[in-house]
Amino acid sequence: MSLIRDLTEAEARRAMPMKWGGTEPGVLPAWVAEMDYALAEPITAALHDAVAAGVAGYPWFGAGGPLGKAYAGFAQRQFGQRVDPGWVLPVVDVTAGVRFAIDVLSDPAPVVMPVPAYAPQLAIGEVTGREQWPLTVHPDAERAEIDLTQLDLLLAEGARTLLLTQPHNPWGRVFSRAELEGIRDVVVRHGARVVSDEIHAPLVLPGREHVSYLDVEGTHDHAVAVVAASKAFGTPGLKCAQLVVPDDDARTRLLEAPMVRNDSWSTLGVVAAIAAYTDGDAWLADLRTRLGEQRSLLEQLLAEHLPLARMRPLEATYLAWIDLRAYGHGDPAEVALEHGRVRLAAGHDYQPGLPGHVRLNIATSPERLTEVVHRTAHALTRA
Amino acid sequence: MSLIRDLTEAEARRAMPMKWGGTEPGVLPAWVAEMDYALAEPITAALHDAVAAGVAGYPWFGAGGPLGKAYAGFAQRQFGQRVDPGWVLPVVDVTAGVRFAIDVLSDPAPVVMPVPAYAPQLAIGEVTGREQWPLTVHPDAERAEIDLTQLDLLLAEGARTLLLTQPHNPWGRVFSRAELEGIRDVVVRHGARVVSDEIHAPLVLPGREHVSYLDVEGTHDHAVAVVAASKAFGTPGLKCAQLVVPDDDARTRLLEAPMVRNDSWSTLGVVAAIAAYTDGDAWLADLRTRLGEQRSLLEQLLAEHLPLARMRPLEATYLAWIDLRAYGHGDPAEVALEHGRVRLAAGHDYQPGLPGHVRLNIATSPERLTEVVHRTAHALTRA
Ligand SMILES: Cc1ncc(COP(=O)(O)O)c(C=O)c1O
Ligand SMILES: Cc1ncc(COP(=O)(O)O)c(C=O)c1O
Repeated sequence: MSLIRDLTEAEARRAMPMKWGGTEPGVLPAWVAEMDYALAEPITAALHDAVAAGVAGYPWFGAGGPLGKAYAGFAQRQFGQRVDPGWVLPVVDVTAGVRFAIDVLSDPAPVVMPVPAYAPQLAIGEVTGREQWPLTVHPDAERAEIDLTQLDLLLAEGARTLLLTQPHNPWGRVFSRAELEGIRDVVVRHGARVVSDEIHAPLVLPGREHVSYLDVEGTHDHAVAVVAASKAFGTPGLKCAQLVVPDDDARTRLLEAPMVRNDSWSTLGVVAAIAAYTDGDAWLADLRTRLGEQRSLLEQLLAEHLPLARMRPLEATYLAWIDLRAYGHGDPAEVALEHGRVRLAAGHDYQPGLPGHVRLNIATSPERLTEVVHRTAHALTRA
Repeated sequence: MSLIRDLTEAEARRAMPMKWGGTEPGVLPAWVAEMDYALAEPITAALHDAVAAGVAGYPWFGAGGPLGKAYAGFAQRQFGQRVDPGWVLPVVDVTAGVRFAIDVLSDPAPVVMPVPAYAPQLAIGEVTGREQWPLTVHPDAERAEIDLTQLDLLLAEGARTLLLTQPHNPWGRVFSRAELEGIRDVVVRHGARVVSDEIHAPLVLPGREHVSYLDVEGTHDHAVAVVAASKAFGTPGLKCAQLVVPDDDARTRLLEAPMVRNDSWSTLGVVAAIAAYTDGDAWLADLRTRLGEQRSLLEQLLAEHLPLARMRPLEATYLAWIDLRAYGHGDPAEVALEHGRVRLAAGHDYQPGLPGHVRLNIATSPERLTEVVHRTAHALTRA
């Protein structure tokens, strides 16, 4: 028996105030990265226990501690990666961690952002007072990957930070060790920094393996990773992510930054993260199995109902990046909403100006996913 | 029977990872602004209910909503203040709200900060890329108040924002309507802005009343308030505060700011805030009664054991600002820790360079408060 339990619509509406609560009744939500599954039991149990004990005071500050230990154990078991618990610093969420790392550690120079990208992070340059230079994957490219020649050029022109997302949303890619080594070589040549957003690491699907950028030799002196249990375990509203900072000097600078920059993680978020990292392996294994099944189902559904859709292999995340240009709509997400009552994420949010793409969230029941594709196909092809 | 229940030391150590958990066993913590009381029952009940329903998804975004409605009701009942629910925007915590408001709304010009000030906010200028100009209350001043001539001068010299804290920590002051009108007149004359940190508003002690800066005529076009249930209800680790923004244009600018600037409040923090604002009045009334008693007890204890201590009337907050210069120690908090095993907050954290002051947290049991003063007195006077 799988540990993954599908939520009813009423349950989902309450559990997810944004994904479901923010979507009109009658419209099927397949946009924001949240899953229609019940929380893992160890997380719920830990939260009840903490609430009963009134654990609502300010959280513990500093590196390491029980959270660092829990993450180090998880990284060892899940990724075969050695993390010193003392490298781990709490932050409120992953994007805030990215902002914090750039603010404190990066030179005041442009940030390179592989695009299409997680939409809110397209503003990370503006918010950290830096230019943001895109490194764009062409929609016709066979593979979504970082063009090292381009990266080299951007760093030569003065960029000092690469914001790496890996596994990548919305590319759905897992980077191989060889690819990461190639990136490292270019970065090191220019003395630049890497912030590696690895929020999707636990969501690598059957057939692939996650390699942290920090697990690549010669990266510790110029890189931090930003990680979280929140995306894989369905707790993004509980607000605790982590920076992994192997370099002593960088860690000191982060710990000595004004509190105003980083003191907003939640005490119950810490409780949930520790429970997930410590007692979540069995649930996570079942989740990956389920997501692997959903991926196969999506392939079948697309082949049958949207045969002109183009999709690169989904190696990680539950977010399918789909090229629907062949159907001739500039904004297929808008068409699907209007005529199909299904809410997808619009491709142009991830790459300004890009027509004809959507991101579709498969982390739901087989029935709902089927309905999502049926409705989308109907909307796109009806005219 | 009072609704206020004192926590045992073991309970407090678990509930407050920072105040108690971050303090060595054997040392009595009277530093950070957290209370040694059990949570109000409606908050615990709402949290259990939300955890049982798996309410862990991203929170609802936007102004108003159930949170805005709950705060508007609270402000009406507690302060007789009319707040439109649609003025209320969630933020992760009060200091993040202050940062967000200055980043988005204030001219890139110096910020005036009345000092002594809540210590972490002394870095708000640095973090928002502005100079921060102190407006210092002399320790010998009979009353702690904002010198309008000074304020006028600083605004004339180019400052564009006043960061008002009211009720004030660590002054312990509640500002009268007439005082606020005086401040408004100076601010308006210079076309400057006010960010009014009103986190301590529900903690106005018997004998005084809170007037929001926004309840003063002619303030809506240039001011926002930052409010929270977290300080009064003992939930600072749950991470949801609110900006109250009556001006349409300012609200639009805040709502349209990049998500990266403001998307980190916690879903369970929203649940706790709504429960506190909606069903917390009875508990809060008992809390104020208890804090009034603690205040009287402190006066007695100081008179008996530290007769040279000087303290202005404590009108609000549970944080007593005490001038101990007469005892001749530059850093009495350090002496109290070393020789008395009690942890106070050092005055120089609130006003760099200020000797001989401490901030003492009275929100504990009468027994612990008695012990805190005994130990402090013993430590300061033993040599
Ligand atoms: C790559 C990436 N980073 C960050 C986030 C958001 O994480 P958080 O909510 O912790 O900021 C997402 C959400 O889907 C994401 O895909
Ligand atoms: C005046 C003032 N503002 C803000 C805070 C902190 O609030 P938050 O934890 O919501 O940032 C405090 C904490 O004591 C405070 O005294």
